[in-house]
Amino acid sequence: MNYTLYIGNKNYSTWSMRPWVVLKYFDIPFNEKLIKFDSFADDSLFKRTMLSVSKYGTVPILIDDDLVISDSLAICEYLAEKHNDLALWPTDSKKRAIARSLVAKMHSGFQAIRHYLPMNIEAELPEIGQIILRDHQDVKNEIMFLDELLSSLLTSKNSDGDYLFGNFSIADGFYAPLCLRLKNYHIATSSVLSDYIDTICNTKGVKDWIADALQEQSFVAMDEPYRIHR
Amino acid sequence: MNYTLYIGNKNYSTWSMRPWVVLKYFDIPFNEKLIKFDSFADDSLFKRTMLSVSKYGTVPILIDDDLVISDSLAICEYLAEKHNDLALWPTDSKKRAIARSLVAKMHSGFQAIRHYLPMNIEAELPEIGQIILRDHQDVKNEIMFLDELLSSLLTSKNSDGDYLFGNFSIADGFYAPLCLRLKNYHIATSSVLSDYIDTICNTKGVKDWIADALQEQSFVAMDEPYRIHR
Repeated sequence: MNYTLYIGNKNYSTWSMRPWVVLKYFDIPFNEKLIKFDSFADDSLFKRTMLSVSKYGTVPILIDDDLVISDSLAICEYLAEKHNDLALWPTDSKKRAIARSLVAKMHSGFQAIRHYLPMNIEAELPEIGQIILRDHQDVKNEIMFLDELLSSLLTSKNSDGDYLFGNFSIADGFYAPLCLRLKNYHIATSSVLSDYIDTICNTKGVKDWIADALQEQSFVAMDEPYRIHR
Repeated sequence: MNYTLYIGNKNYSTWSMRPWVVLKYFDIPFNEKLIKFDSFADDSLFKRTMLSVSKYGTVPILIDDDLVISDSLAICEYLAEKHNDLALWPTDSKKRAIARSLVAKMHSGFQAIRHYLPMNIEAELPEIGQIILRDHQDVKNEIMFLDELLSSLLTSKNSDGDYLFGNFSIADGFYAPLCLRLKNYHIATSSVLSDYIDTICNTKGVKDWIADALQEQSFVAMDEPYRIHR
């Protein structure tokens, strides 16, 4: 196999981050193609480039020879099958089902957090975080739910390691961008979740992604609605 | 195994419909528990009931002995693993990856269609459909994209049967509710997609779900923002 992963800006693209981190953590070699966000309009350079790669016109896209796979979750499922020996999902069937529930929740849910707290790795935004918590009860509710959900997994006897299901898995890859959102907006969390966020930030793959994001130095207005420059 | 599937109203609940249809199509036995929607507020009967079943508080939920699986996609992945002989996903690894991309798109996308054209199986709503197409370019764009996406699969040489990947699979279960939306709002589609919608409506499982939905006779205001009674 000869993988190419198309991604967006590392500072902003949560969807791109998930399979990238999984690939890096498990030492699966791949070529990276970073297509910078300008806008998501049909005539934007980003959109035109990605529409030439796949009809979905989005990132991430994984190319494996003649196969073009769209979507972070479909990509991770494909990698899990191809690299069955690496245990990208928990090996226990029940744990795996619970991990997939959690990942599905990330994939379709947490809409308020995703809308109001866009990932912005290079920035420290404690005031923006406070304003958003003050004005948006739905964000507060989602954070409370998230904290309970992750904390209960991390403290349960299911978890014999530092990660959500013991060893690092796709589930951690999916929740890594959310951890960075909480961190950069200085959102207060339980100590269990705070420790997990520290663990994630120091995890192979995540660390590399963060380092690359800090190098980017671009400002994309649509990703930072709360300010007009860095 | 001894499955119980919690679902919402058959007339409205697209998420519930997906795994239900898959279970029925593949003749996998299960008990059904239908929890009627009243509202999604924390103190609603629906929410209180579902929160006693799972911390997610949503439908569908699949129970398999002591295992509680939330989310339509996580449930289908679990079933696909447990019933590996039934080929719930396409058996070819590449087709399966493309099917998962398509399902992931349904799981996180088509937000405008999902918002403006809520499923309402018992109703014929051609005027509402026209008004929504007139007023919401994003709905039109999504329908155009959807039509191209499904038509290209249905006419490609990948497809040796009447379904998206030849034989019926989880992908068809995921797109069945969308077909019913297009049908009930009388949205014009390509002839390839129209034929597929007819096929889906006459598919085992989908037919049963529709028949049950027509029996329900309840009116849930939050699911029908465009009228005040049936």
